[in-house]
Amino acid sequence: MRILTVNVNTTESMTESIAESARKVAESGVEIVGLTPRFGAPSCEGNMESYLAAVGVMDAVLSYDQPFDAVIQAGFGEHGREGLQELLEQPVVDITEAAASMATFVGRSYSVVTTLDRTVPLIEDRLQLAGLMDRCASVRASNTSVLDLEADENAAIQSIVAEAQRAIDEDRAEVIVLGCGGMAALEAAVREQCGVPVVDGVAAAVTIAQSLVRLGLTTSKSRTYASPLPKDLKGFPLS
Amino acid sequence: MRILTVNVNTTESMTESIAESARKVAESGVEIVGLTPRFGAPSCEGNMESYLAAVGVMDAVLSYDQPFDAVIQAGFGEHGREGLQELLEQPVVDITEAAASMATFVGRSYSVVTTLDRTVPLIEDRLQLAGLMDRCASVRASNTSVLDLEADENAAIQSIVAEAQRAIDEDRAEVIVLGCGGMAALEAAVREQCGVPVVDGVAAAVTIAQSLVRLGLTTSKSRTYASPLPKDLKGFPLS
Amino acid sequence: MRILTVNVNTTESMTESIAESARKVAESGVEIVGLTPRFGAPSCEGNMESYLAAVGVMDAVLSYDQPFDAVIQAGFGEHGREGLQELLEQPVVDITEAAASMATFVGRSYSVVTTLDRTVPLIEDRLQLAGLMDRCASVRASNTSVLDLEADENAAIQSIVAEAQRAIDEDRAEVIVLGCGGMAALEAAVREQCGVPVVDGVAAAVTIAQSLVRLGLTTSKSRTYASPLPKDLKGFPLS
Amino acid sequence: MRILTVNVNTTESMTESIAESARKVAESGVEIVGLTPRFGAPSCEGNMESYLAAVGVMDAVLSYDQPFDAVIQAGFGEHGREGLQELLEQPVVDITEAAASMATFVGRSYSVVTTLDRTVPLIEDRLQLAGLMDRCASVRASNTSVLDLEADENAAIQSIVAEAQRAIDEDRAEVIVLGCGGMAALEAAVREQCGVPVVDGVAAAVTIAQSLVRLGLTTSKSRTYASPLPKDLKGFPLS
Amino acid sequence: MRILTVNVNTTESMTESIAESARKVAESGVEIVGLTPRFGAPSCEGNMESYLAAVGVMDAVLSYDQPFDAVIQAGFGEHGREGLQELLEQPVVDITEAAASMATFVGRSYSVVTTLDRTVPLIEDRLQLAGLMDRCASVRASNTSVLDLEADENAAIQSIVAEAQRAIDEDRAEVIVLGCGGMAALEAAVREQCGVPVVDGVAAAVTIAQSLVRLGLTTSKSRTYASPLPKDLKGFPLS
Amino acid sequence: MRILTVNVNTTESMTESIAESARKVAESGVEIVGLTPRFGAPSCEGNMESYLAAVGVMDAVLSYDQPFDAVIQAGFGEHGREGLQELLEQPVVDITEAAASMATFVGRSYSVVTTLDRTVPLIEDRLQLAGLMDRCASVRASNTSVLDLEADENAAIQSIVAEAQRAIDEDRAEVIVLGCGGMAALEAAVREQCGVPVVDGVAAAVTIAQSLVRLGLTTSKSRTYASPLPKDLKGFPLS
Repeated sequence: MRILTVNVNTTESMTESIAESARKVAESGVEIVGLTPRFGAPSCEGNMESYLAAVGVMDAVLSYDQPFDAVIQAGFGEHGREGLQELLEQPVVDITEAAASMATFVGRSYSVVTTLDRTVPLIEDRLQLAGLMDRCASVRASNTSVLDLEADENAAIQSIVAEAQRAIDEDRAEVIVLGCGGMAALEAAVREQCGVPVVDGVAAAVTIAQSLVRLGLTTSKSRTYASPLPKDLKGFPLS
Repeated sequence: MRILTVNVNTTESMTESIAESARKVAESGVEIVGLTPRFGAPSCEGNMESYLAAVGVMDAVLSYDQPFDAVIQAGFGEHGREGLQELLEQPVVDITEAAASMATFVGRSYSVVTTLDRTVPLIEDRLQLAGLMDRCASVRASNTSVLDLEADENAAIQSIVAEAQRAIDEDRAEVIVLGCGGMAALEAAVREQCGVPVVDGVAAAVTIAQSLVRLGLTTSKSRTYASPLPKDLKGFPLS
Repeated sequence: MRILTVNVNTTESMTESIAESARKVAESGVEIVGLTPRFGAPSCEGNMESYLAAVGVMDAVLSYDQPFDAVIQAGFGEHGREGLQELLEQPVVDITEAAASMATFVGRSYSVVTTLDRTVPLIEDRLQLAGLMDRCASVRASNTSVLDLEADENAAIQSIVAEAQRAIDEDRAEVIVLGCGGMAALEAAVREQCGVPVVDGVAAAVTIAQSLVRLGLTTSKSRTYASPLPKDLKGFPLS
Repeated sequence: MRILTVNVNTTESMTESIAESARKVAESGVEIVGLTPRFGAPSCEGNMESYLAAVGVMDAVLSYDQPFDAVIQAGFGEHGREGLQELLEQPVVDITEAAASMATFVGRSYSVVTTLDRTVPLIEDRLQLAGLMDRCASVRASNTSVLDLEADENAAIQSIVAEAQRAIDEDRAEVIVLGCGGMAALEAAVREQCGVPVVDGVAAAVTIAQSLVRLGLTTSKSRTYASPLPKDLKGFPLS
Repeated sequence: MRILTVNVNTTESMTESIAESARKVAESGVEIVGLTPRFGAPSCEGNMESYLAAVGVMDAVLSYDQPFDAVIQAGFGEHGREGLQELLEQPVVDITEAAASMATFVGRSYSVVTTLDRTVPLIEDRLQLAGLMDRCASVRASNTSVLDLEADENAAIQSIVAEAQRAIDEDRAEVIVLGCGGMAALEAAVREQCGVPVVDGVAAAVTIAQSLVRLGLTTSKSRTYASPLPKDLKGFPLS
Repeated sequence: MRILTVNVNTTESMTESIAESARKVAESGVEIVGLTPRFGAPSCEGNMESYLAAVGVMDAVLSYDQPFDAVIQAGFGEHGREGLQELLEQPVVDITEAAASMATFVGRSYSVVTTLDRTVPLIEDRLQLAGLMDRCASVRASNTSVLDLEADENAAIQSIVAEAQRAIDEDRAEVIVLGCGGMAALEAAVREQCGVPVVDGVAAAVTIAQSLVRLGLTTSKSRTYASPLPKDLKGFPLS
């Protein structure tokens, strides 16, 4: 089984780090291939960049010329999953939705702790459209940018743990979802300090993608995700 | 890895048939153990029987004296999952929630096709509490009882396919969820005739239970599913 | 008219105290009969115990061999009402729903003040399924256990009043619902100190049960609460 | 105990008929006093007339110079209950809300069958603000005007029964609420022909008003229904 | 084009001040005519007064004997708009709905800052019925009465700015709606101090009324706002 | 005042036709400038094409080198409005939201009649995120493609009128919204045949954009629509 994990930004080191996280939970025999968009922003923290990501991710997948069994879109709160679903028969899993979905199996309510406040509305929008807001206690920002995550991991952990604790105490969250593709490495620390289950989106998405393949489930083509009509597109795919 | 699949009724042949379905999608190395309640109804089709099932299932799991990694409650729309979660650290997966959750990854909306009309409200209640109603197009009854399923499989398939087609045409469902633990065998037929993905709850639950174990996720003990306080219970467990 | 008030736990002194509360608001000519389950927990503070209560209450009512006109299930946030409704023609009134319903007639929003935090989710679930959450400002825990209520009434009152005041000030509650069958005796104190109407569930349920009988209303048997099909149940009723 | 049942239109014969319905379910010792507005429409079938009713009802109650214990506003879907609650300490019960509330105790869902289609939105608005829409299966019009009800009772019953049956079959209603103050006399016929519980608003409101008085509950004055500030009103009360 | 701006209270100086606000944003060629009800309260701060306003406003418009193109009901959170819509073909715009609607075009969420706490529920009810609550972050009271607004404008601005800032910080509002017809003059000050867009209801309503006229849109007469049937009303219109 | 009306597809003739519709309702002194994306599909009928449109529209606006006062995104149900709002201070109006918003001022509920069934989910998603679903009775497809609209206007009108009539009769719509940027020319025909108000999105958006400019309202920069951080984007803007 081959699963494509597609980064939403153009930073190759993040693509590799995401693929590494994915490999840690992949079943034996599952090959994880990381893809990097050739179009878009070096990190996604807002709607404009997120729309670029939607196009960059579709382009990256269309450019991949080997067979594959499932696709993971590895951006938290990003646009684009629906477009990929139209283009492919194979299952497409968004890490935001995967994480929230898995969280509901181990607690009555979950909170997302993400990076910057400006990404909170994007995450809320995605959860809303996915029908996953009912059990979402809150989406909170730790005010740790993606760069901060790499610059000083200890400080990042402290900010994220503090916000997770507020979610537990004030919003009654019973599970914490890490709201950024780059937070996978912090999972153990947050889990240990907060005492509740912690879900990383990339890992969750890998297990769901494997499950869908194992169940023989492919994207429904009956209506919303029907294949696009053949048309003369301008400028897409990008090459 | 050992996963307990607990039937909700007292009919041992159904327990075995559920375990068989589970084994078909289990990873290699996963042992599926079927448990049958010693308390309750031979089939569950209403609230009273469902409440008996909640107690029967908890009792069956407490009576099991070997180690295990996860529990699947194999009743569609049945009460009880929350009680098991209080009693256990291991993940507990309800097949209703597992099926609906997996369905949302392959279509924008899903419909459940179940047996009798009187079970529809129970299924709706469970989906509502689980936060899974937003993308549920409808819960429909095929007027095929659990017994009918076994007596005349062809007739059962025709009834279920007909209702699934109505869900697709009238309610705009893009995925069909089979709303009964005993419908697993009909999956291929319905999928072929309706042309949309079809999800069986037992199979979906097995893959989710495996995923939770693989991710190291256990039930949150922070609030709703905290262990019961030690108390002198009357008549429970049953022996 | 005879109304059964069924305790949800196995503690007979609480059954008697509930029946006493009920008698205080019963019309003349109404006989209140208290029933105690032979199965379950000495107090209910979680899902597992609540599921035992559901079965214990059904068993207690089925064991009662005299005629009666209505049943009150006297547990706050407990499972089981729907099962009783299937078994009976007579109206069944849950005190959670009765209290919330009456509260909406004397204020635009109400808050429930209950005992322990872990019972809050059960109460929220019940209100949700009953369609009573829209006007619920909050469900708050006073961190007073059922035992504490009896051990030091003054301290209990102070905790409950303090939490009720927070509900009024912060959540904009205009009515307080006492979220425990054993809090009836505190009603006057809370009402006096908070200055808003206070609703006790047992008392509310008695007046609603009387009203239903007076109106000639019995449980609809058309779908959800249709009588169970005749089946060979294992272990139920308990004797 | 004295309960005022205030008609919403200016037709005295309807006031008397409403009072008669009320007396049939009143406890012994309860006096029912019918009041007729001096301002407004001879029947209420729209928003404009309903706003006149709100003022006419407040005026009628303010003009009543004897003591009383509760007020029933006897218009289905009419404006005004909140204004009365500001003016009075005594409980105020709207028949729309009373009927819907009682219906939820005997079935999982209810439908309202009213007179003309143009009153449906008013009823929906009132149920929405009262937080009673969750379990409302539908509000349906029988296209029977208030006058028709009196002119040919048999024809009226047939129209109403037919619409109630559609609500049961198509909308899955388990209880029927009669959506007009003047339909009380049809209750038995509809109940008999449809086989489900039927709730009349006036009767339901009487039992709820009695219950509130018995429970010592009066309108909360803490916020929404606080007494109006003393002001120099122009033209009100009307005399 | 002639637009009637109808005050909801009987204070003529406020009518004139509202008309002045309206004229500031009116297109050239648009005549603004201020109307004052002859019936009702000198200021509206509660449901009773608001119901009087509904009747007073309808009466004022019916008494106006010149042609006009649209009506603005200039009360924040007041009842009555639906009645006017039945009486007229011309568009009717409520300032509450106009302000909230315009706010959603310049920010993802908005908060209303109004005068007294007791008017908050009325505003919430109106926004709810208008389908405008989804993007409403909060409705907050500044505890500044309508009279206070005129007595000490600086103090009023400070209270309103402080509450607006709380809405931005705590409720994540991105736009502030001034929740009172008499706050138009404070718009610039609040906008400057809070740094977010500020919407005044009267100004918003004028532009929407002009838009509706320009688009040739008139009130739908198909159902809810169909013209009242001819009836013999008592006491209305008032003269 | 200069308003940019940006087409979402690459077909210049549609850009011109949209601009023409816009000019018909623009105030005197308002210049309408039509822009065509250099990137994307010749018509947008699905998520993939809609995501391309989001990028194509942002690019087209960034490439425009003259001053302007507002932007209209002229695609029905398309992605992208939020990205433009981050990039600009000037108001951005989406025609889907503009049409639905104006519809709510002239009727209690509205239905959208669009082209193909596969675009229905996109429109529903957009209305949902915009908080405009509460009063939406339905979104219906006429099975008329964008090309069909041009090929045989009479046939198109008949299909659209038929679907609008079903929305009025079955879904209780009181206003019809034309769900396609290219349907403006059909407005009069549909209005005449259905007898209810009909709203065209482009026209509605022009009047709202004018209103926002007149009110001095610009996009809130406080959170969701804050300007993007300066980053090194790959491939964007496109030239």
